[in-house]
Parts: sequence; structure tokens; C-alpha cells
Amino acid sequence: MYDGIKGFRDFYPGEMAARRATIDTIEDAAHRYGFREIGTPALERAEMWTDKSGDEIVEELYAFEDQGGRHVTLTPELTPTVARMVVAKQQELSKPIKWFSTRPFWRYEQVQQGRQREFYQTNVDIFGSSEPEADAEILAWAADALTDLGLTGDHFEFRISHRDILGGVLESYETDVDTTEAIRAVDKSGKISTAEYHDLLVEAGLSYDQAAEFDELIASGDLEDVESFADTERVTAAVENLQHVLGAAEDFGAREYCTISLETARGLDYYTGVVFECFDSTGEVSRSIFGGGRYDDLIESFGGQPTPAVGVAPGHATLALLCQRAGVWPEEEVTTDYYVLQVGDTRAEAARITRELRDRGHVVETDVAGRSFGAQLDYADSINAETVVIVGEQDLANDEVTIKDMESGDQLQTAVEEFPGDRERPTYEDFA
Amino acid sequence: MYDGIKGFRDFYPGEMAARRATIDTIEDAAHRYGFREIGTPALERAEMWTDKSGDEIVEELYAFEDQGGRHVTLTPELTPTVARMVVAKQQELSKPIKWFSTRPFWRYEQVQQGRQREFYQTNVDIFGSSEPEADAEILAWAADALTDLGLTGDHFEFRISHRDILGGVLESYETDVDTTEAIRAVDKSGKISTAEYHDLLVEAGLSYDQAAEFDELIASGDLEDVESFADTERVTAAVENLQHVLGAAEDFGAREYCTISLETARGLDYYTGVVFECFDSTGEVSRSIFGGGRYDDLIESFGGQPTPAVGVAPGHATLALLCQRAGVWPEEEVTTDYYVLQVGDTRAEAARITRELRDRGHVVETDVAGRSFGAQLDYADSINAETVVIVGEQDLANDEVTIKDMESGDQLQTAVEEFPGDRERPTYEDFA
Repeated sequence: MYDGIKGFRDFYPGEMAARRATIDTIEDAAHRYGFREIGTPALERAEMWTDKSGDEIVEELYAFEDQGGRHVTLTPELTPTVARMVVAKQQELSKPIKWFSTRPFWRYEQVQQGRQREFYQTNVDIFGSSEPEADAEILAWAADALTDLGLTGDHFEFRISHRDILGGVLESYETDVDTTEAIRAVDKSGKISTAEYHDLLVEAGLSYDQAAEFDELIASGDLEDVESFADTERVTAAVENLQHVLGAAEDFGAREYCTISLETARGLDYYTGVVFECFDSTGEVSRSIFGGGRYDDLIESFGGQPTPAVGVAPGHATLALLCQRAGVWPEEEVTTDYYVLQVGDTRAEAARITRELRDRGHVVETDVAGRSFGAQLDYADSINAETVVIVGEQDLANDEVTIKDMESGDQLQTAVEEFPGDRERPTYEDFA
Repeated sequence: MYDGIKGFRDFYPGEMAARRATIDTIEDAAHRYGFREIGTPALERAEMWTDKSGDEIVEELYAFEDQGGRHVTLTPELTPTVARMVVAKQQELSKPIKWFSTRPFWRYEQVQQGRQREFYQTNVDIFGSSEPEADAEILAWAADALTDLGLTGDHFEFRISHRDILGGVLESYETDVDTTEAIRAVDKSGKISTAEYHDLLVEAGLSYDQAAEFDELIASGDLEDVESFADTERVTAAVENLQHVLGAAEDFGAREYCTISLETARGLDYYTGVVFECFDSTGEVSRSIFGGGRYDDLIESFGGQPTPAVGVAPGHATLALLCQRAGVWPEEEVTTDYYVLQVGDTRAEAARITRELRDRGHVVETDVAGRSFGAQLDYADSINAETVVIVGEQDLANDEVTIKDMESGDQLQTAVEEFPGDRERPTYEDFA
């Protein structure tokens, strides 16, 4: 007997049904927005990450040498792959390019609740527009996807910022500040004490007075204060862009879910503009549910024409935690419209009924294991069959079948030639 | 600039739309039959193949050592994984277990038309029934999936046999025959000359007279002749089982697609009963499109209770070749219901119309890139928009919008408050 690998999950039908319903809902929203599905490979050249990504992601790669001597890796994220695809067909693709896909990725991480080594994301990106409407469309899609799942503004919020605000404010200090270190401190600020946070800011080059002032300024999230404090073109432009994105989000119906949160920095190096993270409003799921933002330099860094880009990638594990917490996670069970039960040698007639019901699009099972009446009924119950059609030798001798409603247990006989007849979805009620 | 890896394909939206339509059709058929979707990992312990599979598949593994020192492999097929999953929950799962999934697999093979190193399959299996109805249900599902794709009996056939017929006939010779070698010869017989075929049979232990006689007997596909020639319990039981499966297939509507073909041996070692392969009836696609069969011993070999099993796994690359050859492959293009075109500062009203149309479930794009009228119209054309709704400043001043039918080029104005109004899917025709 073999075991699965740690961090790699098997999904049995009940749980898979809930996941599939969730994925279908999210992808349906992407379709309606005109995002187009793409299909991407599980393996890429490892250099796509080792050449330029941060240490953390490189350390977590499932990388190896293939039989042809290529240095390859299971892809830990989608963005470099879509960048490669955009570059490969840059001339033919009409812009903006709006793509989505749902698939697994792999990182050798510590396994914990909501974090596996194999994890699923739906990536949604727009390439070829630097306009705030593109950022806002990403936010609007994410909001629609979440509300389609049954979530509301009571359950989630998008904490939104702009990559240049933190950097620009830090840059405006006359002292020599290590911006990267200071942003890292901001990123941690939610998980550590104020004193520890200020210590880190001081280590990055601020005085204690400056650290306290900076903390207060950023925590307030007041864009006008931030702009006048920094008084630099970079910060003014960032604040203006963020306000334009929020204005477009208002028109697109997503503004109500957005909270300005200047602590939001996002870990990945390639973000260049607006960044945002989705959080559980109640804080019960403490980590970020997912995040996204603008990454205008990535395509060029992959050898393409300069191409602005913005995207988001909900991860299905954390999304499931949020939905479960909010009480909107689908039932983890299979559903069945009909079970066609055979008693005696009635296979031909049972098969005829089964086929006619399947032709109408219903989920229909019938006996393929030669089981007894009781075993078939137990099985029908285990698959949550709504209606059982009993095709018995004796009934058939009278040209009848029995229709049993599984919830009430009620049953009755009806003429076999009338089942299913011209009814689209005949149930016990239709004959009672 | 980075390249993708040989044998790993990128699917851009047009081709992906055709693939998705195909996968949806196949999976919808699986749903109607009551097969339940499962989710399975990309990586498994390599021992699941190196312990017992044939040399060929082991040589083709993408195997490596992970950071935890585990000897892992990208999965080259699904069957060992589902066997592992059945064994892990053997007691709780109600039987028969009917599972399906669509996902990629990986083998380091020679790349050729219809064969990539990353390839997609829809696996459909029944565990827990040794009855011929289970084999027939697999055949019936495959037939329904293919006819749902628009294929007919003129396009495909299932060549069906039973694993024990060839072996049993060879065993019935008094001379000492190497059965494995002889079956391998039969497997090759379609691709080599008769003389070469007979030479291989002689190498396996038959005389030339016996080789000719054996060739004629097997090629005839006459089950009665085969049964009386061998005159052993093993062959009699195999013939009887095959006939029962065909009888059930008749009731299930799949018999018409089945041709008895005793040359059909299937490469994989784990088959134990009925085996079949789907072929292009015209022979234009010369290789097998996909195959399946019964593998009753596999679950036990994975440490589980003896559990009969039967399954099939259409591969999407060869299936695409068949559909293209038959002229039923979907158009490789994206479709769009509406493009909402903005002229001047009309974002709020355009957004209102866009949202209302999306709420009705339509695929709707609008400008997120600040493009000109002409550029937006070109873009709408490139995404095959059916209707363009032009929201212009001047029209809006008159409380109007313009509805343009993209096929005819016809357009007209209508009152903005009436669009979309209470119409589910308003087009030019509704206002003309």
C-alpha cells in the first residue's frame, strides 16, 4: 500500500463537488467579463525563476533535470508563463489581452491549514492597458466572483494601496533609509508589537520620532496627508492613480469592497502600481485570502515590448476557508436526479428509461453490479438520489413502474409507457 | 526571452475554447452517467510505477528526488492513483465507485502529431462490479461522449476483445509457446507484413503452419470458431463474458459501435478481461484514439480488498485529431455577446449597461484601455462581438445609445433607459 505525498491532496467526490461548484462560479464570472481561458504547461525552464525571482520562491521550487538535460521546474505561479506566452505572440494578439485559467501550482513550503504544496489558483490578468479602468476591472471581477459565491461586504474587504506610496514616503526622508527593509517592516507590522515594528523601522534608518510619525501617517490611510507629507511627484502621481482606480471601481460596482490600506505592500518584487489583498472582514481567517496588482515591467523583463499588466489570482484553499467561515461553502456531497432500480430480469426496460432520462440531461444511475433490491436502495440513498424508478418484473407484467420519492419515502405505480413520456423531469409529484 | 519546453504546449484562447467545449461535452456525459469528479495530485511516489509497471513506462517517467528526499514522479497515468485512493477509503466508499477526472499526465516520449510529453486525458472508471453491465456502461459512456461531440458510427469504432482469448488460444497449443511474445506479435500485426508477422509467431514457438492457422482464426474474429478451436475453460469463459458484455452494450445503445477484433491486446499489463480500443473507422488516423478495459487485480496488488474494476481514458490530443478528420472539431475562436463602446466621457453609463448585460449571463467587454472609436471597433471585431453598444456623449445628450449588429453592420439608435431594459438578450433585431 502506497501513501500520497505530504502537501498533495486527494479530493474525493463530495469535497470535489463543492470545489467544482466554486471553480465554476468563479470562471463563469471571468467568462462574463470577457476573460478568455488559456491552457499552460506544468513544467517550465527553471531559469524563468532562478534568473530573477526572490530567494524565497527559488528555494521552494520543485526543480530537477529532465532526461534531455533541461533544468526544469514545476511552476510555482503563473505570471512568468503568461508573460512568456504574451511575448511569443506579441504581434498577433489584439490588446488588451484578457486571460484566465484555473490550475495547480507547486511550492515546497511548510504545510498548514489553507496551504498545501500543491495548490490551485484562478489567475485573471489584463495585458496592454495602463489605464485605471483595467485595475478597476480586476477588482470588479474579483468582487463579482466573491459575491456570486454568496459572500457579501460583511465577509470580505479589499485592502488597497499603491506600490509607490510607501516607497515614495520613505524616500522623502532626508536620512538614508533602506526602503526595502522598511517596507518589509511594514509588511510585518500586523503580526508584531508596535515597539518591535518601530525597532525595525529604526534599523532601516529612521529615528524613533520618525518611526512613530511614519507609523501614524501610514496607519491613517489618509491620502491627502500622505501626499502633502511627502510632497514628491512620485507620491502625488501614486495617490492620483490610486484615486482614479477607486473612481473607476465606483462605476464598476466594486468601490464598496475597497479599503485604503497603505500597509498593503505585497511580497512579490514585480508589482509596480496599485496592489491589493483580499481579507476576511471579521479577521477570523487571519491571513490574506488572495492578492493582486499592477506589474507593468514584467513583460519587458521577459524580452517583450513594454506592456502594462494587472492581475489577481484567488487561491482555492484560502477561498474555501473564507467561504466556510462565512457559511456559504457548498454542501460537500454528490447529487443524483434518478436511480433506476432493477428487480429481476428487467435490464432492457431499465436501460431504456435510464437512457431517456440521461438524454434530458439528468444525472442517472442504474444497477451495473447485479445487486439486490435492498443493496440498490441503500446505494441510491448513498448517492442522494432524488427519485428512484423501480423497474420490477411483476410491475412490468402489468406495464407499470414504481416511482419513489426518496425524501418522503412515498411511492406509486404509473404506466411504463408514460415514463418519462414527454415530461422533462418527472417526479413523484407529477403522478400523485 | 524564454522558450517553452519541448512536448509541453501552450493553448491560446481560440484553441483553448475548442478544447474546453470538447472537455465540457465529454464531462457532461460522465455526469449524466453518475460518474463523480475526483481531484488527484500531479506527483506521486515513483515506486508506484517502478515497483511493478513495465519497463517502457518507467523509462518515460519524469521522476526526481524532492527536497524531503522522496523519490517522486509526475504521474504518467491515473490508474495507480485511483487505486491508491480506493484502497485508502475502501470501507467508507459505497460501491460501485464511479469516478471521472480530466487532467494532464506526463511521459518523456518522442514528440509527434497527437503525442506530446504533457497530455490530457479524461479517465472514467467503475470499481466494485465484475458484472458485464459495468464493462458495457463504460462502452456506452464512451459512445455517448463521442456522439455528443458530433461523431457517428461512420467515424469511429470500438475494437473489442477479451484478454483471455489470445492467451487461451496460444496456451491450447501442445507446443511450448511464449505467450507474451506471441501477443506482442499480434499487437504489431497491423503494422508489419504477413510474412514478418508469421516469423514473429514462429519465434514465439509456433510452426509456420500453426502461425498461418492462428492468424486466420484470430483475424476471422469468429467467437464460436475460437471457442471450439481452443476447447478450454479459459477461452470458453472469456468468449461467454465478451458475449455478455456485448449483450449489455446492446441494451445500453453501444453495441452498434463495437466490432469484435481479437487482435486487440492493449499494451498495459494490468488488464484482465474485456479490452477495447477506439479507432478512426476510415483509418485516416491510423493509431488507436484511446483504449480501456477491465483490470480486476490492480486494487488488490495495491494492498486493497479484491475489487473488480473497468475503465477507459480518452486522450484529448488523439480525440482532437479524430474530430478534426471528421469535421466536427469546434471553431477555434473566442465568442463575445456584446462590446460596449465608449465615446467621450461616458464611462458611468457604459459601466451600467455592461453590468446589466453581465448580470444576465452574457459575455461582455468594454473599454479598459482608453482607446479611440476605431481601435475599439477593431477590437470588438477581433473578439467576434455579436452586438456593439455604442455609448457616445452626443447620443447620451439625447438619452440614446446606438446598437450595431456586427455581422450586417446595421445600426440604429434607441432610448438609453430601454437598454437592456427587461430584455434578456437584446440585439439589433429587437429594435429594428
